[in-house]
Amino acid sequence: MARINDNYLKLKAGYLFPEIARRVNAFVEENPDAPIIKLGIGDVTEPLPQACRDAMVSAIADMGDRSKFKGYGPEQGYAWLREAIAKHDFQARGCDIDASEIFVSDGSKCDCGNILDILGPDNTIAVTDPVYPVYVDTNVMAGNTGDANEQGEYAGLTYLPISADNSFTAEIPSEKVDLIYLCFPNNPTGAVATKAALQAWVDYARKHGSLLLFDAAYEAFISDPEIPHSIYEIPGARECAIEFRSFSKNAGFTGTRCALTVVPKTLTGKAADGSDVELWKLWNRRQSTKFNGVSYIVQRGAEAVYSEAGQAETRALVSFYMENAKIIREQLTAAGLEVHGGTNAPYVWVKTPAGLSSWDFFDQLLKTCHVVGTPGSGFGAAGEGYFRISAFNSRENVNEAMQRITEKFKV
Amino acid sequence: MARINDNYLKLKAGYLFPEIARRVNAFVEENPDAPIIKLGIGDVTEPLPQACRDAMVSAIADMGDRSKFKGYGPEQGYAWLREAIAKHDFQARGCDIDASEIFVSDGSKCDCGNILDILGPDNTIAVTDPVYPVYVDTNVMAGNTGDANEQGEYAGLTYLPISADNSFTAEIPSEKVDLIYLCFPNNPTGAVATKAALQAWVDYARKHGSLLLFDAAYEAFISDPEIPHSIYEIPGARECAIEFRSFSKNAGFTGTRCALTVVPKTLTGKAADGSDVELWKLWNRRQSTKFNGVSYIVQRGAEAVYSEAGQAETRALVSFYMENAKIIREQLTAAGLEVHGGTNAPYVWVKTPAGLSSWDFFDQLLKTCHVVGTPGSGFGAAGEGYFRISAFNSRENVNEAMQRITEKFKV
Repeated sequence: MARINDNYLKLKAGYLFPEIARRVNAFVEENPDAPIIKLGIGDVTEPLPQACRDAMVSAIADMGDRSKFKGYGPEQGYAWLREAIAKHDFQARGCDIDASEIFVSDGSKCDCGNILDILGPDNTIAVTDPVYPVYVDTNVMAGNTGDANEQGEYAGLTYLPISADNSFTAEIPSEKVDLIYLCFPNNPTGAVATKAALQAWVDYARKHGSLLLFDAAYEAFISDPEIPHSIYEIPGARECAIEFRSFSKNAGFTGTRCALTVVPKTLTGKAADGSDVELWKLWNRRQSTKFNGVSYIVQRGAEAVYSEAGQAETRALVSFYMENAKIIREQLTAAGLEVHGGTNAPYVWVKTPAGLSSWDFFDQLLKTCHVVGTPGSGFGAAGEGYFRISAFNSRENVNEAMQRITEKFKV
Repeated sequence: MARINDNYLKLKAGYLFPEIARRVNAFVEENPDAPIIKLGIGDVTEPLPQACRDAMVSAIADMGDRSKFKGYGPEQGYAWLREAIAKHDFQARGCDIDASEIFVSDGSKCDCGNILDILGPDNTIAVTDPVYPVYVDTNVMAGNTGDANEQGEYAGLTYLPISADNSFTAEIPSEKVDLIYLCFPNNPTGAVATKAALQAWVDYARKHGSLLLFDAAYEAFISDPEIPHSIYEIPGARECAIEFRSFSKNAGFTGTRCALTVVPKTLTGKAADGSDVELWKLWNRRQSTKFNGVSYIVQRGAEAVYSEAGQAETRALVSFYMENAKIIREQLTAAGLEVHGGTNAPYVWVKTPAGLSSWDFFDQLLKTCHVVGTPGSGFGAAGEGYFRISAFNSRENVNEAMQRITEKFKV
């Protein structure tokens, strides 16, 4: 009989968000009238920018006109979109990134997982703890780990704790690690990394020949002008970093689907025979063979993000969510809770009150306040005793949720 | 330094279609006025059905309305689309397939490659020769093969020749093979498989515990009522087959992107400890973790394929391309060329004239007729001496291309 990939059997219970959905659905089934407010999954709630919608309607008209109809597009994305991204997101910030180094895709989650396709099975790998679960789970699936222990930590992974003790920036490992996943602004803690902190990572990576997998999905939420938006703002990063970006959070594309990955042509990895191989070539081959590009219609929508109107609308969207984050921070702080993040990121990282475990707080919040958040322990062992609250919702729902939580949990 | 996946270095030159694009671009650069007609890559040319465009415009309006806005959707696809697919494509043909067994994706090419994620590294694998290159290349990338020989055949793969000698249906292997890729209507030969032929494959698979990976991307082009459209029309297929489908060719979605994979819940694979594991659960975990679903807008477009208007329009599109195929068949046959396929598939498989190699014929056709086709040898060693001509183009271009070819190559 055909053999399965046994590594899948090492995966713990369920991926975090489906597990949350399961508990919420079970509660709603028993309490169909409970006025649930979801501040759990980092999913946007506000309408897509008009500029993006107009561009997509126009793209659909193209698809109805034989002379403008688009069949298969370039697997890497259309040149006009790659050029707009390179110019606005990178070159405008002084990053030396060319359009040919941008790979447009249907999601950062996909790319974060797929990137392992081009990397060898014998790399040492570090993740922060807590961490976005996809980095870990995709390594488990790819066979890059051993089994999990009681805390859900997988053998063979190096966990770099981030907590209030180290200002939520992981300490640079003392030993050599080949692949390091970094996410700033951080999901789930909402922490950011300074230029100096990122420079230290780049220096480490260059010294050891490590590859940084830098997830910048939340860069649009940075308000502090001193904080880098891209790893390529750091000298030397072109030699050691791949960056993941998305239109999901800045332009509200979670249901529309468009993202991008930057693979500089100066990046290399080692082959078994000791030779250096361009990672760009490998990723280009992977995408050409296993991907067929993003919908033309959606790419036109993404391009409109860079129009004058699109820029104004996405800025307004980001400001709206960040005002929510501010309300969450202030209300919970006033109620006596310990709160982190939420100033340069759409996530607020809360210490659970009264020493509750993350899932106990989740269940209490769901049952007594009808508010859904995300248990910190779902992001790793070091997230235990914390809770993530997302700023993605309407103002009304955020205010209402904060009122319910502060009434119930005021210290 | 980070290690690469060395299996990528085993891949031959370039994926077939980028190599064709490279040669065509080089020719066009030197001959900018040459009136090129492309009958190479199987890419549609006619406008998207009005029903699909209307549905997508309406979906974009939803995205502008907070109360109808869609963020992350189910990774498996929206229930309304999965149900429409199950009902129209499967249940209506007597196939016992439930909506929960349908996984909506952004492309069949992606799924054909990604399916290897859930399968073990020690399966024996068979492909036909010639074959759609993605089946082979993704196995090479996944480390399921050895190196390629001079003919481009990879060690460790079982090649099942298909040719005029066996009516373009592969012979059932005598030995046990764990995974078998089948594509009917066939790309590239345009051949179809009868019920009896498919029943023999299902019987073989059930006897040996093999998994059939059945690519039905071209099922809409079947005109013979006796030819099955789905492997699930064959008793026992639920126990041994995964099916890949696409909206690319029937509804012209190559640039819009929507496809689906059927994984019956009755399918199992063997774990290392000898236990049986549901493949549905593994694929569901893979898609939940490494995929974020297809754009809501595109899914609404795909759903409209099943409306009354959508069905009429897709039937008209298919008829249009099949009339092209008929013209290609008839013209080339009249010119004395040996021609296969093109009656239940949008591909015509032509024996190259005068004993030319596939690539020599490609170059001659490009240079003297300004017509682009696909060299048979690009699909495998047994495709040498053959050439694929696609029926996807305007009537005018097909007529013009046939006139040029028959004038030059009349036997």
